[in-house]
Amino acid sequence: MLRNVVSMKDLSKDEILSILKQARKFTLGEKWFPSQQTFVANLFFEPSTRTKTSFEVAERKLGLDVVPFEAGRSSVLKGETLYDTVRTLESIGINAVVIRHDADEYYHELVNNVNIPVINAGDGCGQHPTQCLLDLFTIHQQFGQFEGLKIGIVGDVRHSRVAHSNADALKKLGAEVKFSGPSEWFEEEYVQSGDYLPFDDLIPEVDVLMLLRIQHERHNSESAMSKEEYHQSYGLTVEREKRMKENSIIMHPAPVNRGVEIADELVECERSRIFKQMENGVYIRMAVLKEVLEGRMANELAYKRRKYSI
Amino acid sequence: MLRNVVSMKDLSKDEILSILKQARKFTLGEKWFPSQQTFVANLFFEPSTRTKTSFEVAERKLGLDVVPFEAGRSSVLKGETLYDTVRTLESIGINAVVIRHDADEYYHELVNNVNIPVINAGDGCGQHPTQCLLDLFTIHQQFGQFEGLKIGIVGDVRHSRVAHSNADALKKLGAEVKFSGPSEWFEEEYVQSGDYLPFDDLIPEVDVLMLLRIQHERHNSESAMSKEEYHQSYGLTVEREKRMKENSIIMHPAPVNRGVEIADELVECERSRIFKQMENGVYIRMAVLKEVLEGRMANELAYKRRKYSI
Amino acid sequence: MLRNVVSMKDLSKDEILSILKQARKFTLGEKWFPSQQTFVANLFFEPSTRTKTSFEVAERKLGLDVVPFEAGRSSVLKGETLYDTVRTLESIGINAVVIRHDADEYYHELVNNVNIPVINAGDGCGQHPTQCLLDLFTIHQQFGQFEGLKIGIVGDVRHSRVAHSNADALKKLGAEVKFSGPSEWFEEEYVQSGDYLPFDDLIPEVDVLMLLRIQHERHNSESAMSKEEYHQSYGLTVEREKRMKENSIIMHPAPVNRGVEIADELVECERSRIFKQMENGVYIRMAVLKEVLEGRMANELAYKRRKYSI
Repeated sequence: MLRNVVSMKDLSKDEILSILKQARKFTLGEKWFPSQQTFVANLFFEPSTRTKTSFEVAERKLGLDVVPFEAGRSSVLKGETLYDTVRTLESIGINAVVIRHDADEYYHELVNNVNIPVINAGDGCGQHPTQCLLDLFTIHQQFGQFEGLKIGIVGDVRHSRVAHSNADALKKLGAEVKFSGPSEWFEEEYVQSGDYLPFDDLIPEVDVLMLLRIQHERHNSESAMSKEEYHQSYGLTVEREKRMKENSIIMHPAPVNRGVEIADELVECERSRIFKQMENGVYIRMAVLKEVLEGRMANELAYKRRKYSI
Repeated sequence: MLRNVVSMKDLSKDEILSILKQARKFTLGEKWFPSQQTFVANLFFEPSTRTKTSFEVAERKLGLDVVPFEAGRSSVLKGETLYDTVRTLESIGINAVVIRHDADEYYHELVNNVNIPVINAGDGCGQHPTQCLLDLFTIHQQFGQFEGLKIGIVGDVRHSRVAHSNADALKKLGAEVKFSGPSEWFEEEYVQSGDYLPFDDLIPEVDVLMLLRIQHERHNSESAMSKEEYHQSYGLTVEREKRMKENSIIMHPAPVNRGVEIADELVECERSRIFKQMENGVYIRMAVLKEVLEGRMANELAYKRRKYSI
Repeated sequence: MLRNVVSMKDLSKDEILSILKQARKFTLGEKWFPSQQTFVANLFFEPSTRTKTSFEVAERKLGLDVVPFEAGRSSVLKGETLYDTVRTLESIGINAVVIRHDADEYYHELVNNVNIPVINAGDGCGQHPTQCLLDLFTIHQQFGQFEGLKIGIVGDVRHSRVAHSNADALKKLGAEVKFSGPSEWFEEEYVQSGDYLPFDDLIPEVDVLMLLRIQHERHNSESAMSKEEYHQSYGLTVEREKRMKENSIIMHPAPVNRGVEIADELVECERSRIFKQMENGVYIRMAVLKEVLEGRMANELAYKRRKYSI
C-alpha cells in the first residue's frame, strides 16, 4: 500500500503496473467506495483546468466529499506555511490532499510530518506523477506492453515536469526513449547519453511521439524563435505526420498550442491520443486515490491494533 | 428533445410552452433525477451571483454532481480556446456545460462540434435564454396566458440581453410589446415599428412593467444623466406606481439599483415579482437541464441502437 | 431554539452550555441530518482557510448541500447590498447563510429582515461566536467546568474579535479572566477593572493561556516593535512555558505566527491545544447549524399551523 504519491522515483515497476491495472478495471466499470464518509481537498496554488477538474471528477466517482480550497484566498496570504495549512486541514477532518505548488519538492515538509496522504499534482519544474501515469496507461492501452517500444519526447525537455518522469518511468518499464527539440532546451544528461536525435530522423522511428507544451508562461525571456519558426523546425506538421510509423500514436499533455507544437488539423486526427489522455487521467486518479486511501485505512487499523491489542 | 439551449430564436412556441409546463410541475414538487451519476460544470467568465447560484441549486435539486470551474484560474489564461476547454471537460467526463461569456454568440464554435449539451447563461450583448424563460414563466404564472397582454420594457433596451429575447418571445406567444427609456438607448428596429412610447403614457397601459437594469459596468462613457435624473425621468417612482393598471405587475432582472430604476420602497411591494422571478429561475433551469440531459440520453441510445442494431 | 447566531452577547449561559453538550455528542459519533434536502451558502468577504473549511466540513457531515459563493466575483461588485444578496439567496432556495464580512455588525440589516438563519463567522473587529464557542468547548473538554478557572488572554486585545467575546462569555460562565500584552493595544475597559497583569506575572497563575494572533494584515501602521522584540516581551518562549502551572493549557485561534506569539517548538507541545481547537471547531459548527436549522423548521411548522390551523 502506498502512503503518498509524490514522485515517480518512489514507485517500483510493480507499483506502477498495479496502478495501471486498477485504472483499467475502472475503465471497465468497476466501482470502489471508501467504507465511510471521506473528505479530500485539492490545493492548487497554480492555475489548472485539466488536472484539477480531472481530480474533482475522479473524487466524485469514488463518492468522496470534496471540500473546496481557494488557494488565492487562503491563510497562505497571512503568511501561513504549507505545513501549517495541511496540518489544519488534517485537524478539521480532511482525509487526503492533492497539491499543485510552484515550489520544487514542496512535499518534503509534508511527507512523514502530516498523517494524511499527499498526492502531488505538480511541483515547480519537478514531478507530476499522475500525468506520467496517465501517459503510461495510454501507451499500455495501445500496445499492451512497454518492452521494445521506442518513444520520442520532443520540445522543452529541460523545463518539463512530464519529460523527466516519463523518461525515467518508461526506461524502468523497458521502453527506449529518444529526445529532440531546440538545443537551447537540451537536457545535458540526455545529450551525454547520446539520446538526442534531429527531429526529422526521430519522426519515422518512434511508436509514440510525445510532444511537450511550450510553456510561454514559464519562460521569462522571449524565445529567439517565433511560433511559426518553432512549428516549422520542431512542430508536428501535416507533412511530418505522413512520415510516422504505422500504428504509431501522438501524445501531448495539453493545453495544446495549436499550430505550434502540432498542426491545428492534427489535434484530433486518428493517431492523436490527446483527448484520450484526458479521459484516461480520471481513471488513473481514481486508482491513485483508492491506493492511498486504502493505505490510510490500513495504517489506521494497524494503529488501532497496536493501541487496543485487537 | 432539445440538444442545446443557447438562444430563444431556436425555440418554437411549443418548445417554450413545454419548458414552462415542466417548470410548473417542479414548483408543485415533482422530482426528476438522471438514471446515472451525471456531471455538470458552470463556466462563468463574467461575474454573477444570481444566475450561477440559481443553476447550482437547480443542478443539486436534480441530483447532479457539480464540478467547480474557476474561470479566472483556468487554462484559458494559458491561451486555450473555449472549444478546447469544453472538449477537455467532455473528455474528463462532464455531461453538460452551462456557460456565461462576454463574447457575442461564443456558442457557435461549440454547438455541433462538441458532444455534450451547452446551456447559454448569457453571451455578450446577445441572449440569456433562461432569464427570458423565467420572465415568461412569471408572467404566465400571473395571467395564465400571453394572448392579449400588453408588456412594457423600459430602460437600456439597446444593450440588454434580456430585452431582445423577451420582446421576440412575447410577440411569438401572442403578447403586445411596447418600449420606453432614454432616446440615447433607443433600439432602431423598435423605433421604426412605432413601439416606443413616452414613459408616462406607458405606465397606465401595461399589464407587465419590465424594468431593465442600468448596467454601469458595461457603459464605458459616463452617461450625461445622473442617477436622480434617471429616476425622475425613467424610474418607477412611488407616484408612477399609483397610476399602474389594476392587477398589473412589476418585473426586473436584478440586481436592482435601488432608487434608480425603481424606488427603494417598491422593490418588495405587492405588485413586485422581483424576488419571485429569482425563485422561478430555479424551476426553469431544472426544466432546461432535464430537457437537454434527456436529449443527450436519447442521443446516446440512438447511437448505441445504430451501432449495435438493438 | 435559536434563530440566528450572530453574537455571544445574545446567548444565555444555558444556551451556551446546550451547544457545548450537543458538540460533545457529535464528538462521540452522534449523527443528525435534516429531514429534507437543505441548502447552505458560505459568504466569506474576507479570506479564511480555517473557518471556511471548518464550516464546509461541518455542513457536509450534516448532509447539507453547500452552494458555492465566490464573494470576489459576486454581484456585490455591481454595487448590490448585503441585504439584497441574502434575500436573493433566500429566494433561490438557500436555507441558511454563514457570513464573514469586514463591516462591524453587518448582520443588523439581515436579522429580522430575511427569513433564513444567519450565522456570523466574523464581523470586522466585532464578534466571531463559533470561534468563541470552540474555545469554550476546548476549555470545558479539559477541565469539565468553568467555575474557579483563571484564563489569561494575551496580545492585541483591542483589535481581536475573539478576545472580547471570550472574556464576556468566560465571566458569564464563572471563570476569572486576566489580560496582558503591549500597552498600545490595551483595552481601556479592562484597564479600569484592574484586569491587566505584567506578562511574566500572568504566566504561572493561569489554567489557560490564550494567545492572540498579531494581525499584521489589519494594522496599517508599522508597529514600533519587531517580531523578535514582541516574542521576547509578550511571546510564549520555551523558558516561559516551563513556568506554567501544572495541567495548564495553551490556546491560539490560529493561524500562528511561529516564533512571534509562540516559540516554533511549542506549537505542537503537550500543553498546546491549538490543533485540538481546530478539530473541535467542526463539532461546534455542526451543533450551531443543527440549532438554527431546527429553529427554522420549528418556525416553518408554527407558520403552517397558524396558516392551516393544524
